Amino acid sequence: MTTLNIAVIPGDGIGQEVVPEALKALARALEGTGTDIATTHFDLGARRWHRTGETLTEADLARIKAHDAILLGAVGDPSVPSGVLERGLLLRLRFALDHYVNLRPSKYYDGVPTPLADPGDIDFVVVREGTEGLYAGNGGALRVGTPHEIATEVSVNTAYGVERVVRYAFALARKRRKRLTLVHKHNVLVNAGHLWRRIVESVGREYPDVETGYCHIDAATIHMVTDPGRFDVIVTDNLFGDILTDEAGAVTGGIGLSASGNLNPSGEFPSMFEPVHGSAPDIAGQGKADPTAAIASVALMLDFLGHGGPAGRVEAAIARDMAARAEANRAGEPLARTTEQTGDAITALI
Amino acid sequence: MTTLNIAVIPGDGIGQEVVPEALKALARALEGTGTDIATTHFDLGARRWHRTGETLTEADLARIKAHDAILLGAVGDPSVPSGVLERGLLLRLRFALDHYVNLRPSKYYDGVPTPLADPGDIDFVVVREGTEGLYAGNGGALRVGTPHEIATEVSVNTAYGVERVVRYAFALARKRRKRLTLVHKHNVLVNAGHLWRRIVESVGREYPDVETGYCHIDAATIHMVTDPGRFDVIVTDNLFGDILTDEAGAVTGGIGLSASGNLNPSGEFPSMFEPVHGSAPDIAGQGKADPTAAIASVALMLDFLGHGGPAGRVEAAIARDMAARAEANRAGEPLARTTEQTGDAITALI
Ligand SMILES: CC(C)[C@H](C(=O)O)[C@@H](O)C(=O)O
Ligand SMILES: CC(C)[C@H](C(=O)O)[C@@H](O)C(=O)O
Repeated sequence: MTTLNIAVIPGDGIGQEVVPEALKALARALEGTGTDIATTHFDLGARRWHRTGETLTEADLARIKAHDAILLGAVGDPSVPSGVLERGLLLRLRFALDHYVNLRPSKYYDGVPTPLADPGDIDFVVVREGTEGLYAGNGGALRVGTPHEIATEVSVNTAYGVERVVRYAFALARKRRKRLTLVHKHNVLVNAGHLWRRIVESVGREYPDVETGYCHIDAATIHMVTDPGRFDVIVTDNLFGDILTDEAGAVTGGIGLSASGNLNPSGEFPSMFEPVHGSAPDIAGQGKADPTAAIASVALMLDFLGHGGPAGRVEAAIARDMAARAEANRAGEPLARTTEQTGDAITALI
Repeated sequence: MTTLNIAVIPGDGIGQEVVPEALKALARALEGTGTDIATTHFDLGARRWHRTGETLTEADLARIKAHDAILLGAVGDPSVPSGVLERGLLLRLRFALDHYVNLRPSKYYDGVPTPLADPGDIDFVVVREGTEGLYAGNGGALRVGTPHEIATEVSVNTAYGVERVVRYAFALARKRRKRLTLVHKHNVLVNAGHLWRRIVESVGREYPDVETGYCHIDAATIHMVTDPGRFDVIVTDNLFGDILTDEAGAVTGGIGLSASGNLNPSGEFPSMFEPVHGSAPDIAGQGKADPTAAIASVALMLDFLGHGGPAGRVEAAIARDMAARAEANRAGEPLARTTEQTGDAITALI
């Protein structure tokens, strides 16, 4: 028996509700595989901050690093000043653990309610850079609160940081439909944009079988609603990836279904898996959050850790559950399930 | 007879095709009003750059400044390195003429083809800041082309710059449905985000009749497809405004319909009116570009210059033409018109 040591950070709001369902699915997926899991729960997020003023201590970080992977629910609460938990906890984990690939697949399951009249075949992956750009926390403010205030935010982009994520994206495209689209805004952000472009061109020479394309971020938000089927692998910076994956979630039926992996492909640090959705304070505590995104994040985790079989079973279970939902919608009797009931239904299908 | 002096910059690609239609509509709208127009055409864009290496000289700028307003087609061509015309011409005009309000209305006309299954009532205005943010051209690169390259882009935000555009947005909201939404990302971009937020809060105190809301840019791209009817006036920074207005164009039937005004409300410099769409090299020269966005930009121009009557007539003509198109679509015989035919049809309705 080998054991996967998972650091579990339920976090805030519905994070607390969806994580138990994800763990249930994880346990089921590994049943009879000779691998089991051991979890360590970390009390991080709004409650901890209110109690201690801490977001993530060096000691927390050291303990988390000793795990094979991290499962995170959601971070953020209206009772905490904006940015404190996001930057002090979530982004601190992504940066400290060098999660340079933020992997966000989007897939449309037939029959799922979508705002699009004709979603078509949507099946793409956004490879979002996770350790640079405007998320670097590099900025400041002068004369705050006066009429002379000036506030800056610096997008930091390095050849080192861009090349490694671009390489990951090309390798992924080769395993998929062999189309890679760089999304940026190089006609305005000429310094960062030209760096991204040159690196995509040069790495692309090693992947002559992968067709590369380019799209400005503004145009990409158009294609995302008019023709999302055109995308296979999108590679982009931290902020553009944030924006595009929320829109992608919306067109494929809601970010309640979107999973993500914050990957450290070198394996130096544990990777972190989390639903794309936030803590959703408006529906927290009511047991109505959809745990599908969290469960799909477990599939990404299993796959990343080399358990392709169990990962595939989780994905197949989600697909079957989505089909059941679509069937119920068509019959005019949409399933009204609690978080736990949806978790149980998917787990039973694994 | 008073005369409006219009600087005309057709620019590149379909800019050359849509501008004549817009001028035709402009002339017609002013017929019999005691105001006529005098135009000065400026040869700016890709051809000029290839011939002379110039994008916009001090002399050009001085001559342009002597006009009452500017009508611009589109800027950008694949034969010119990315950023040269955008930053050297388009953004230079916006910055040199202090176009701090980039006004972009979105309206859905019944029956217009849209990717959304149920667009609902869409009628909002994005007030995009036009002279700061990541568009400031404040960034650089070191060790370019080496594995040690670092490229930065700095978003510059000042209380002065933010307050004036926020004031404009509140005044506009008061004249409309009295709802203002700030779009930013203050949980990550804490310096700039908190500046925007504080200013919206403090100016909002002077507008107790206007309801203010907030939305992160990523969530805003979701609402834009799931519930665009929720928006009335959106105020946001330069980059987020760029992204959101393209998506808004897509959901309301294509950016071939979206107009914009780059306003200098103080009147110190001429304001500039342009379609949101670009030069569209893929369809340029084929006479199939839709001139509606350019004509709608003329309506914004007339309104800004104090000619509310003619502006309203142009808008009404566009609405009637959109209804005719919708009718033709319903009848299964979509109108196949050239740029000129559409321009003529709308002009005839003014
Ligand atoms: C909560 C926030 C800091 C985060 C981000 O911007 O990355 C979220 O939107 C996401 O996409 O994971
Ligand atoms: C062409 C480009 C520089 C411009 C911008 O980014 O502002 C365009 O996208 C727009 O929205 O007017």
